[in-house]
Amino acid sequence: MKVAIIFGARSDSEKMGNAAKCLREFGIDYKAYAISAHRMPDLLEATIEKIEESGASVIIAGAGLAAHLAGVIASKTILPVIGVPIDGALGGLDSLLSIVQMPKPIAVATVGINNSYNAAMLAVGILAIKYPEIKQKLIDYRKKMVEELLSEGSEIEI
Amino acid sequence: MKVAIIFGARSDSEKMGNAAKCLREFGIDYKAYAISAHRMPDLLEATIEKIEESGASVIIAGAGLAAHLAGVIASKTILPVIGVPIDGALGGLDSLLSIVQMPKPIAVATVGINNSYNAAMLAVGILAIKYPEIKQKLIDYRKKMVEELLSEGSEIEI
Amino acid sequence: MKVAIIFGARSDSEKMGNAAKCLREFGIDYKAYAISAHRMPDLLEATIEKIEESGASVIIAGAGLAAHLAGVIASKTILPVIGVPIDGALGGLDSLLSIVQMPKPIAVATVGINNSYNAAMLAVGILAIKYPEIKQKLIDYRKKMVEELLSEGSEIEI
Amino acid sequence: MKVAIIFGARSDSEKMGNAAKCLREFGIDYKAYAISAHRMPDLLEATIEKIEESGASVIIAGAGLAAHLAGVIASKTILPVIGVPIDGALGGLDSLLSIVQMPKPIAVATVGINNSYNAAMLAVGILAIKYPEIKQKLIDYRKKMVEELLSEGSEIEI
Amino acid sequence: MKVAIIFGARSDSEKMGNAAKCLREFGIDYKAYAISAHRMPDLLEATIEKIEESGASVIIAGAGLAAHLAGVIASKTILPVIGVPIDGALGGLDSLLSIVQMPKPIAVATVGINNSYNAAMLAVGILAIKYPEIKQKLIDYRKKMVEELLSEGSEIEI
Amino acid sequence: MKVAIIFGARSDSEKMGNAAKCLREFGIDYKAYAISAHRMPDLLEATIEKIEESGASVIIAGAGLAAHLAGVIASKTILPVIGVPIDGALGGLDSLLSIVQMPKPIAVATVGINNSYNAAMLAVGILAIKYPEIKQKLIDYRKKMVEELLSEGSEIEI
Amino acid sequence: MKVAIIFGARSDSEKMGNAAKCLREFGIDYKAYAISAHRMPDLLEATIEKIEESGASVIIAGAGLAAHLAGVIASKTILPVIGVPIDGALGGLDSLLSIVQMPKPIAVATVGINNSYNAAMLAVGILAIKYPEIKQKLIDYRKKMVEELLSEGSEIEI
Amino acid sequence: MKVAIIFGARSDSEKMGNAAKCLREFGIDYKAYAISAHRMPDLLEATIEKIEESGASVIIAGAGLAAHLAGVIASKTILPVIGVPIDGALGGLDSLLSIVQMPKPIAVATVGINNSYNAAMLAVGILAIKYPEIKQKLIDYRKKMVEELLSEGSEIEI
Repeated sequence: MKVAIIFGARSDSEKMGNAAKCLREFGIDYKAYAISAHRMPDLLEATIEKIEESGASVIIAGAGLAAHLAGVIASKTILPVIGVPIDGALGGLDSLLSIVQMPKPIAVATVGINNSYNAAMLAVGILAIKYPEIKQKLIDYRKKMVEELLSEGSEIEI
Repeated sequence: MKVAIIFGARSDSEKMGNAAKCLREFGIDYKAYAISAHRMPDLLEATIEKIEESGASVIIAGAGLAAHLAGVIASKTILPVIGVPIDGALGGLDSLLSIVQMPKPIAVATVGINNSYNAAMLAVGILAIKYPEIKQKLIDYRKKMVEELLSEGSEIEI
Repeated sequence: MKVAIIFGARSDSEKMGNAAKCLREFGIDYKAYAISAHRMPDLLEATIEKIEESGASVIIAGAGLAAHLAGVIASKTILPVIGVPIDGALGGLDSLLSIVQMPKPIAVATVGINNSYNAAMLAVGILAIKYPEIKQKLIDYRKKMVEELLSEGSEIEI
Repeated sequence: MKVAIIFGARSDSEKMGNAAKCLREFGIDYKAYAISAHRMPDLLEATIEKIEESGASVIIAGAGLAAHLAGVIASKTILPVIGVPIDGALGGLDSLLSIVQMPKPIAVATVGINNSYNAAMLAVGILAIKYPEIKQKLIDYRKKMVEELLSEGSEIEI
Repeated sequence: MKVAIIFGARSDSEKMGNAAKCLREFGIDYKAYAISAHRMPDLLEATIEKIEESGASVIIAGAGLAAHLAGVIASKTILPVIGVPIDGALGGLDSLLSIVQMPKPIAVATVGINNSYNAAMLAVGILAIKYPEIKQKLIDYRKKMVEELLSEGSEIEI
Repeated sequence: MKVAIIFGARSDSEKMGNAAKCLREFGIDYKAYAISAHRMPDLLEATIEKIEESGASVIIAGAGLAAHLAGVIASKTILPVIGVPIDGALGGLDSLLSIVQMPKPIAVATVGINNSYNAAMLAVGILAIKYPEIKQKLIDYRKKMVEELLSEGSEIEI
Repeated sequence: MKVAIIFGARSDSEKMGNAAKCLREFGIDYKAYAISAHRMPDLLEATIEKIEESGASVIIAGAGLAAHLAGVIASKTILPVIGVPIDGALGGLDSLLSIVQMPKPIAVATVGINNSYNAAMLAVGILAIKYPEIKQKLIDYRKKMVEELLSEGSEIEI
Repeated sequence: MKVAIIFGARSDSEKMGNAAKCLREFGIDYKAYAISAHRMPDLLEATIEKIEESGASVIIAGAGLAAHLAGVIASKTILPVIGVPIDGALGGLDSLLSIVQMPKPIAVATVGINNSYNAAMLAVGILAIKYPEIKQKLIDYRKKMVEELLSEGSEIEI
């Protein structure tokens, strides 16, 4: 496993599924866990240890409302933690601020509201600094992305 | 000790001082701790246990930015936790939402931004349901408050 | 009756129903009232007195828009008042700020937008400092919550 | 007295002073009161009755934070109530929403944040529908305002 | 006609209809106009003059987005103008701020987002200071409101 | 005169001065006017006519709070109108929304809060589609801007 | 081609279609392109050059979320760029601020959220300072708009 | 060089200085550049290439207002990009949303407003997955942080 995905509630599965989908596109091993920071703090701590031991390099954490999950994980590991604010109220502004505004020196790499796909892209970019084959896949992904967009053409009838 | 006051950073001392001041007015024993949820999670956990053993009934927790402190404490104790959002950015909106929007079933009793005095008043009100002498003091406080306001008179030159 | 639930309009019944559901889970007696702070101030005042005489220890108050109910109740009783902001406009931000930003020294213990379940959990936590049997139920509730979550397992396919 | 000005705290005197200044410009009798809705509800109620008996036609109410004053007054009188949100936190957004978002059918005529002068102008406009001499003064005020602006000239060096 | 209702677009008819409904309940004559401040400034000006000549005492103005209608009307009449922010984007925050934040000395009496009913209630309250029969109707309305609410009873099963 | 600058209050002179400064850098003739949309609607209308007759191509309008000036001007001319939100409250959010959210089909070209310099740059860009010499100056300005930035070097000690 | 319309994603076609519709009403030639600023920066740059060579006078750019498209275009051309914030999250506030708050001296002429029709109206207004026939069409459009509105009448039953 | 720090304006030096300070604490080589995305797009592109060739693993990008810098960089490199929103208006909300809300698949790892120190901490965490000596330093840093906090003691007089 190279990436662990943790989210606060089983109901977040769908929104966090795009992170898994992205990692599968890159052929990167991941495991996903539904663990609430507030309801299962001990399991969370044990799981973080297990993730560290497994040799994973990045943790993606998604949560809504007063979203403490990513920050709590970051306080218990030195692995880079990527936070995904999930929209549960106020358009997700509560979750965004709860994740991104971490006081120093514990940081969370925050992506856009509900944008778990980008969390995975960021994880891929981080892994790419260590794993040359992932770096190559990322270069290929970007190239293919541009080629597909170009093949569609840019002029459009509206 | 009946009330524990915890805040995330020594720099919050001044803003949280109004809680202590209020408790002293009521003659209620308290202890104050500067413990960051993110930088000292183990000490936080140990301190919560110590607070529980001391027989305290209420915990007041103040923090700014992505303020996880109150929620993390509430996840580790069944004592009522009162959260004080401290203004560190965006007028304190980040902190307010990080504290008040706790997902069920772990709740934080949130008061206004920087309003640690009200946190202590809430603590007094909670203690008053158990301790008749505090109830009496609270009744007296309210009575005195009204008397003083009345003695000032309400008509005013502007 | 140990807890009184008051809300501003009959149309809030559904959103406030989760508070009642939670209290029933704990076997805690409650009564619910639909009383508008602005349209029925006298009945509100009379009802607060009746609630106090009944020996209730906590009042939960839910309202939307310019939500004055919780603050007005808090100004007329020394019982702890828990405020539930109900989303009627602007995602509930109006209601949240109208409840949580109470000026000192009258405080309202505010929970998240529409989160009446958490209001009841907070009421349970407050009652638990006085009633040992409720304290035990709360400890059991937390233990059962963790056990159920653990039995579900945390690893999940996404 | 034709207009009563009520505000929640003596510290609001300065910001509410512009309302008084405006009324003096129009030669309209007013009285000002510092009465907190939450700390002195009984005095507030008694004062509203006194104001009604005095023959006043309009009440101006200024408050900050969770500003319930104007709404509470409006619930206890049929006189038009003009609300002035005072900036105490969040740039006054909390106060604005607490005043303007009154649920039907109790309304508050809300003006801009800290803009007590406009509250008085609105009071003058309301009085003008009843009192011909105030109507005339208002017409003159507008005429004079335009004349003064015109005499300044509009072209300007910047 | 005692009250004129003006709104910016025919599509606002439904939301502004509650103002008309309220005025009919009070038996108060009104006329409604769909006039855009930006698209028909001349007709707006002519209509305001006609309204003034008709002896109307209050103008209600509803608009969405960058809602200038109420402020523009207020700048062209000394009649009290009541502004209704209509939700067209951002939950109506744009419209609310465009109406309520009028710089001195031209004021608009602003009510809650989409709350045209309250605009009419405010108009009734203003008319009541001049017309004793409307004052009596308003007193009766309030009395009946309370009686109906009381007859429903306040205790409720949830 | 090629550009007219209008702002609501003499106190906005300083913030609007950057627009004038920018136009002088380009050697573009302008005139500035302090005219309130709400207090001097007739003078505003007359001035707009005068501006149109003078052959000006663009109008820059700056205002704060419920900033109607730019929209009102746009409703009375077919010249492109550039709006500058000025921060008077809420960080300028009220003004920004009052200007940018113009309902169709009357548009205002809005720039950033207090950013009158950019309003002038936009005016220059618009004039450049008509006047070749201004187009050349704009090309030169951009070239010089880049050269100056390059001459400063980009590497920096921090 | 006189106007180029660029938007970030094919899914924005519908919202940007109103710009095209407006330009067709005025008989103004345009071309539309779906080009992401972040995914196809090179194609974007090449397209901007092509647009400049084609003699187009204005570029309309629509994008959602962290909407950089309009600003990036403006940094690469001296043609006036009109930005349309598209609502993808938070009611479009993210996109609005990403477009309108451009630091000096690169400006974007921003219109309301999702309001691509107004972007086209602004383009027409800009073209009108150069092309007398478009100026005439714009005068006619305004005249016709008023006539149609007048023919509908302004009084309305609600 | 392992980390490149880029920011939009020389005036951001002070706020971005904390990133450099943090990297120096870890003995990590960095270079800093003041390059505006909008004013110097070509130099930005050239610099990104140079940074990639230098073997740097992470880029930190700080900007205010409509902060496109981080997103533009991320679109031109596969290196992980960390974005620092700088407060230039609206408390930095504009900058935060302009950076964090990047549409897929180009992501920016966003940290809190003005919190360049945390950006560096995140960079250190990312480097630590590749460089064992940095990993060890990060472990030591955390250990030392806790030791220092513990040595201060947590109980505090307020």
